Amino acid sequence: MKYSKLFGKTIKNVPKDATLASHKLLHQAGFIRESTAGRYYLLPLGQIVQQKIIKIVKEEMDRSGAQEIVAPILHPLYLWQETNRDKATGFGLITIKDRHGMEFVMGGTAEEMIVDLVRKFQISYKDLPFHLYQFSAKFRDELRSRGGLLRVREFIMKDGYSFHKDEEDFKKEYANMTKTYTKIFKRLGLETFIVEADNGDIGGDYAHEFQVKASAGEDTIYYVPSKKLFFNKEIAPTSAPKFNQLEEYVLPLEEVEGKGLIGVDELSKFLNIPVEKTTKTILFETDKKEVIAAAVRGEYNVDEAKLKRIIGCQSLKLLDPAKIKKLTGAEVGYAGLLNLPHNIKVFLDDSMKGRINFECGANKTNYHTINVNFGRDLPEPDKFYDFKETKPGDFYPGTNEKYETFRGIEVGNIFQLGYHYTKKMKGATFIDQDGSEKPYYMGCYGIGIGRTLSAIVEIHHDDFGITWPESISPFAVHLISIKNNKKAEEVYKKLDESGIEVLYDDREDVSAGGKFADFDLIGIPVRLVVSEKTDDKIEWKDRKNKNSELLSFDQVTARLKKI
Amino acid sequence: MKYSKLFGKTIKNVPKDATLASHKLLHQAGFIRESTAGRYYLLPLGQIVQQKIIKIVKEEMDRSGAQEIVAPILHPLYLWQETNRDKATGFGLITIKDRHGMEFVMGGTAEEMIVDLVRKFQISYKDLPFHLYQFSAKFRDELRSRGGLLRVREFIMKDGYSFHKDEEDFKKEYANMTKTYTKIFKRLGLETFIVEADNGDIGGDYAHEFQVKASAGEDTIYYVPSKKLFFNKEIAPTSAPKFNQLEEYVLPLEEVEGKGLIGVDELSKFLNIPVEKTTKTILFETDKKEVIAAAVRGEYNVDEAKLKRIIGCQSLKLLDPAKIKKLTGAEVGYAGLLNLPHNIKVFLDDSMKGRINFECGANKTNYHTINVNFGRDLPEPDKFYDFKETKPGDFYPGTNEKYETFRGIEVGNIFQLGYHYTKKMKGATFIDQDGSEKPYYMGCYGIGIGRTLSAIVEIHHDDFGITWPESISPFAVHLISIKNNKKAEEVYKKLDESGIEVLYDDREDVSAGGKFADFDLIGIPVRLVVSEKTDDKIEWKDRKNKNSELLSFDQVTARLKKI
Repeated sequence: MKYSKLFGKTIKNVPKDATLASHKLLHQAGFIRESTAGRYYLLPLGQIVQQKIIKIVKEEMDRSGAQEIVAPILHPLYLWQETNRDKATGFGLITIKDRHGMEFVMGGTAEEMIVDLVRKFQISYKDLPFHLYQFSAKFRDELRSRGGLLRVREFIMKDGYSFHKDEEDFKKEYANMTKTYTKIFKRLGLETFIVEADNGDIGGDYAHEFQVKASAGEDTIYYVPSKKLFFNKEIAPTSAPKFNQLEEYVLPLEEVEGKGLIGVDELSKFLNIPVEKTTKTILFETDKKEVIAAAVRGEYNVDEAKLKRIIGCQSLKLLDPAKIKKLTGAEVGYAGLLNLPHNIKVFLDDSMKGRINFECGANKTNYHTINVNFGRDLPEPDKFYDFKETKPGDFYPGTNEKYETFRGIEVGNIFQLGYHYTKKMKGATFIDQDGSEKPYYMGCYGIGIGRTLSAIVEIHHDDFGITWPESISPFAVHLISIKNNKKAEEVYKKLDESGIEVLYDDREDVSAGGKFADFDLIGIPVRLVVSEKTDDKIEWKDRKNKNSELLSFDQVTARLKKI
Repeated sequence: MKYSKLFGKTIKNVPKDATLASHKLLHQAGFIRESTAGRYYLLPLGQIVQQKIIKIVKEEMDRSGAQEIVAPILHPLYLWQETNRDKATGFGLITIKDRHGMEFVMGGTAEEMIVDLVRKFQISYKDLPFHLYQFSAKFRDELRSRGGLLRVREFIMKDGYSFHKDEEDFKKEYANMTKTYTKIFKRLGLETFIVEADNGDIGGDYAHEFQVKASAGEDTIYYVPSKKLFFNKEIAPTSAPKFNQLEEYVLPLEEVEGKGLIGVDELSKFLNIPVEKTTKTILFETDKKEVIAAAVRGEYNVDEAKLKRIIGCQSLKLLDPAKIKKLTGAEVGYAGLLNLPHNIKVFLDDSMKGRINFECGANKTNYHTINVNFGRDLPEPDKFYDFKETKPGDFYPGTNEKYETFRGIEVGNIFQLGYHYTKKMKGATFIDQDGSEKPYYMGCYGIGIGRTLSAIVEIHHDDFGITWPESISPFAVHLISIKNNKKAEEVYKKLDESGIEVLYDDREDVSAGGKFADFDLIGIPVRLVVSEKTDDKIEWKDRKNKNSELLSFDQVTARLKKI
């Protein structure tokens, strides 16, 4: 490819909102352009890289035994209604109506679509297991997009769905995918950490994310060094650091007026008690319209993902102020465990365990109660849970060691689904050996292609530009001519004929310095220079190395073929 | 690939609405499944074929100098408004609103998107020409879908857009694409006819379709044998067969009452005159809200595509009955050239030329006028046009020879766009050599991948199933084991290791006959059988040939490598 002909040349400017290296560099080097917020064009260079990523993912998926298919992007809404996912909040579902009034969902993930496909077939236990995957455009009506390809509203996802006769068989595929994903990301130049994560709106009981350690990441990963265990913050089991309880005796319950005092920090100052003695009580409504109260030690927040699992519900939302007032009699902000209506189920976080003389709301506007004690003012709890939002400094309960943390970019994820979809969707069954119909046991597996691309750039760049891993570099070499176009042209042709992917900077109106800077920015691993100085040799320089060498044409091709 | 593991095995049933061979066979052989009307899943076999088609299209597009990119599927509506295409009727546009209230169009074609991308760059004459193409899902809210992948509501299209400094440069690319498309379809096993066609809702002045001759086709192609000229029916220039005018003298104008008589056939019977003496007058409203009248000889219909070009408007619609009544004073069905308000512009088709004493509506409910004559009852026309719908039996005006016709499937199309988009879209300009800003001269080029797939099956099948061309067959060979799985397994492994694409029917519970029938249905070009009878040889049979041969493994691989 001649650079003079390439659409999408390098530019100096960066997008106003660009803060991440991958966003800036992919824009400047001519790989992407934004259409509308969170929707990108891939320019020729970007599309070559995207296709190389897809090719590697496909090779490894095929090798793992999965089969590629493709489903329509518009899913009939009735399928999402069958599993109640039309009401799931996390997807930002976009729905449309066609001219006949039929409603569709723009696919975010395709569990229902694939189950619907599978149930069109008569499948016997002999046909199991199978794993169907696709590469297709996915849509999320995200509130905010950010960082180039890192969180977008439209992207290519590899999504796969596996069907099994039972859990045991599924577990083999889960392990198979763990291995396959690790290999895929390794081939793409990414070291990934396998992190326990929440299933979110996908459903099922457990899931793992493939996280790349990067400061640009949106996720916080909690790490147990001695066990090499990784947890996404949202589900990391945690025990709070012990609170140094000074008092030895319970004190009399006391009510303190504190008008308009809301928030544990303000309260601890006003009451002159450590924040650890305060209590946060949050009222939620479940998807079954049940109201529950969840209480944590003041310095913690409630982790809804953990709480949902404990309650066993699909969604939770904060009870709205009007309902709080109606139920508790108090304004929002004064909710607490004291004087709570008996029909509200209470969940206590284990950070509250062992405290005496603590503060707790009494559902009385402008009043705060101190020296509250279990057994006297509140019933002695039979159970504590862990639903606090994990914080740096927290301990892993399994070993009681302090967590380490890092930021991660989630490039892939694997989900156990079990019977989550197949028990909701009628006819999602196979004929077992004994002739009976049984629901499939399922798993699903995703890789965000665009996010992977930007994660690669986050990892592989320096101050001057991108430093592509060879496996997905848009070209194998970047040939530069300096005032010697005729010889460079020959080298270009010969390299091209040898089947080597060459980007040839043939521009006549750009200085050597300008061409070198563009090479650094674009990030192809090898630079070749042909100039009057190089005589009948070619100057070879690695992108990541300062030194250069003069080589013959044959030496160049021999070395390239080894890569 | 082991057939026992393949998802999507053959079945006997065909979809209820399937009338076309490609629809039936692709369903039965396990290549496709319908999701909702006009939206299909590609099963593993179908996806392999689709990917092979895409690969060939990509190879030839790259070779032609075009560059692959990808644009978002959701186009901001304001871009379509810039060119007025949001009001174009032919696309069945689907629009959506995101959570922020921003409106989008689900891409049908991407002219505006690509122009919008290009105008984000500062392009000089030195960067021109360039041609950007993509493979992406396209959406059409079709009133009716039909025939499997032939006319669908969601499909993969290869769409390309070229940018030039002037018409002359564009014409080179138009010729380049004509050659490239012919080559692409040839590699896919399709002979294509290059047919002059209407630009429709795409815009521009001229366009050509690549049509495959097939009885399943939706288009009628008019063919001029001596000139090897092909026209899509909708724009075929035509002269009507001469009407044998018996009278020599003009007769007195006469008004005949004929209550409720509507339609030329009823009328010609009632008046006892040949249908050629009747006149069809149709009132239209243009996109500029102008009302026009178009009149053709009774046995013809008005061809709106031709008429639009003559008038020079983007869309036409039939004037609604209420407006007809208001304007002409008569009910719909009695419109004619007599007594027509003077502000309605009249267009006459050349089939009306030379007639005397003809019938023509007088805009009087329940009355018909006969013996109408130009010069006496109607002004002597200064111009006749050709906007009649071409019919079998019509003549090509250029040579006055009778057209031949055939049915065609449109698999690709190329359009001259000229300045149609770049003069409407602000800033769609490049810097010319003299420093001035000039709009791009454009062309665009499409290939429907799914429709091409089904056209291939329409052409390549027999009574027993599909007969894939080698270039896109899902596998190179179909290996069948008959009660000799161990040896067949060995052959499978060895073929696989030699890099040959094998579908291996390893099922133990299916008879030889059943396996042979499946081979015929699936349509892979070569069948290999390993059984007790074949000893240490392998039986080779071509799909299209009844004879079989016994070959050694080495002979098999040698022959396969030659293909």
